[in-house]
Amino acid sequence: MNRQQLVNQIKQKKSFLCVGLDTDISLIPSFLLDFADPVFEFNKRIIDATHDLCVAYKPNSAFYESRGIAGWQSLIMTSQHIPKTCLGLIDAKRGDIGNTSTMYAKAFFDKESSGMSFDAITVAPYMGIDSVKPFLEFEGKWVVLLALTSNEGGKNFQFLTTGEQRLFETVIDTANTWAGNDRIMYVVGATRSEEFINIRKHAPDHFLLVPGIGAQGGSLQEVAKFGINNDCGLLVNSSRSIIYASRGEDFAEKAREEALKLQQEMSHILEENNLI
Amino acid sequence: MNRQQLVNQIKQKKSFLCVGLDTDISLIPSFLLDFADPVFEFNKRIIDATHDLCVAYKPNSAFYESRGIAGWQSLIMTSQHIPKTCLGLIDAKRGDIGNTSTMYAKAFFDKESSGMSFDAITVAPYMGIDSVKPFLEFEGKWVVLLALTSNEGGKNFQFLTTGEQRLFETVIDTANTWAGNDRIMYVVGATRSEEFINIRKHAPDHFLLVPGIGAQGGSLQEVAKFGINNDCGLLVNSSRSIIYASRGEDFAEKAREEALKLQQEMSHILEENNLI
Repeated sequence: MNRQQLVNQIKQKKSFLCVGLDTDISLIPSFLLDFADPVFEFNKRIIDATHDLCVAYKPNSAFYESRGIAGWQSLIMTSQHIPKTCLGLIDAKRGDIGNTSTMYAKAFFDKESSGMSFDAITVAPYMGIDSVKPFLEFEGKWVVLLALTSNEGGKNFQFLTTGEQRLFETVIDTANTWAGNDRIMYVVGATRSEEFINIRKHAPDHFLLVPGIGAQGGSLQEVAKFGINNDCGLLVNSSRSIIYASRGEDFAEKAREEALKLQQEMSHILEENNLI
Repeated sequence: MNRQQLVNQIKQKKSFLCVGLDTDISLIPSFLLDFADPVFEFNKRIIDATHDLCVAYKPNSAFYESRGIAGWQSLIMTSQHIPKTCLGLIDAKRGDIGNTSTMYAKAFFDKESSGMSFDAITVAPYMGIDSVKPFLEFEGKWVVLLALTSNEGGKNFQFLTTGEQRLFETVIDTANTWAGNDRIMYVVGATRSEEFINIRKHAPDHFLLVPGIGAQGGSLQEVAKFGINNDCGLLVNSSRSIIYASRGEDFAEKAREEALKLQQEMSHILEENNLI
């Protein structure tokens, strides 16, 4: 999915919601455990119930890897079930030297190699340009680079002053020279909403992937107020508050209700900003 | 494998060699492709031929993930074949917010969850303390934190000045407060041998995992000269120059010859430093 297609989906669905598929087998409704692949069955029903209300799905790789082969199988099946009207974003936070990053890119972008063909992947910046470029060599795919993360430990290094600015700002300025805003997005945690004005000075036109709404305490209104741009430029992620809205047989229905609440709030925001 | 056991293995084998299992199915001898799991068969023969000459094996996760389910299966089988006399180190460069890092730890440390039980994992520092601590909560397991990597792009951010020192030095100083040198090692690339004196000011007693010998151009002599400490404190990795020493049926034999050359050089270094 390229940038224009993403913007079109946002306007059409009046939503910039990303649903995080951090699916923990110990937290899904117990009746699903009778299925051959309970995690995929859960994800499938969540996707089927919400795909008209969101523009992206973001499975976090760790939740699948923790279950070994079975988990990897659930992830492959899930990747194949994400509809073309939604960005498939694998939250894997990878990054290694060049030839190794190419292997990671194959793992998540090249269906013939691995069974998976996501549109985008989260990447950690610490190893620099040659850890990021191999992902960009896959045509039409996105790198979503960690800039300012929502967790407490994000402050350990990301806020360090490097020259006249902080590390996360230098990461953004540097990565801006590696590819355009049609190939790179940045992760900016919703728990740092006071930083969005500042982030927009460094990346005015980029899309930002914003985790931390809901369970982690970030505010959608705050994020939108300071972070929205002329193309919306935001993908706001919610995981637990949607997918675990109910632990009963009605989990997909309740997930839809939660997604709908966020979509309606987003629709207002898009209207207020004359984007729809 | 705890620190004392690792030191004992180093003294007993007169070696601080780590063999990197960056096994690319397109580079292994073609006769192996007739086996049910060619990559595992390759790794098995490499391990069987070299385990008395090295103290660690380091499969890089990317090479396995790129092949989807089949690759994950090869990785599980490989992890189970690493003998107890060698540290099993998964080079996965993971790191995420707390509950997600716990999932990554389960993936690589908890055999009941995933089929794998490595002794150590490489972790990226960008997300800070809560991305690292969950790995340390698994008793007896090691975190090998990226500090100064061997690749060109390592300079992009790791060399930035933060206060009175560079980012990689601040990463080391900070992580030193998270756990002792019996639980954390640091990655320091062999291509940066001029930095080892400096690194030892920040981490005098830690073990350092040193990639970049061989194909990447680092010098074992230089690394040892400036990096060795009273417990040796080095795990020097070599991947391609050992595992691809021959592409013929004699690949395991030739791998042993290359490993033996390094082990002999290491034995001299250990003697010169009165460590054996």
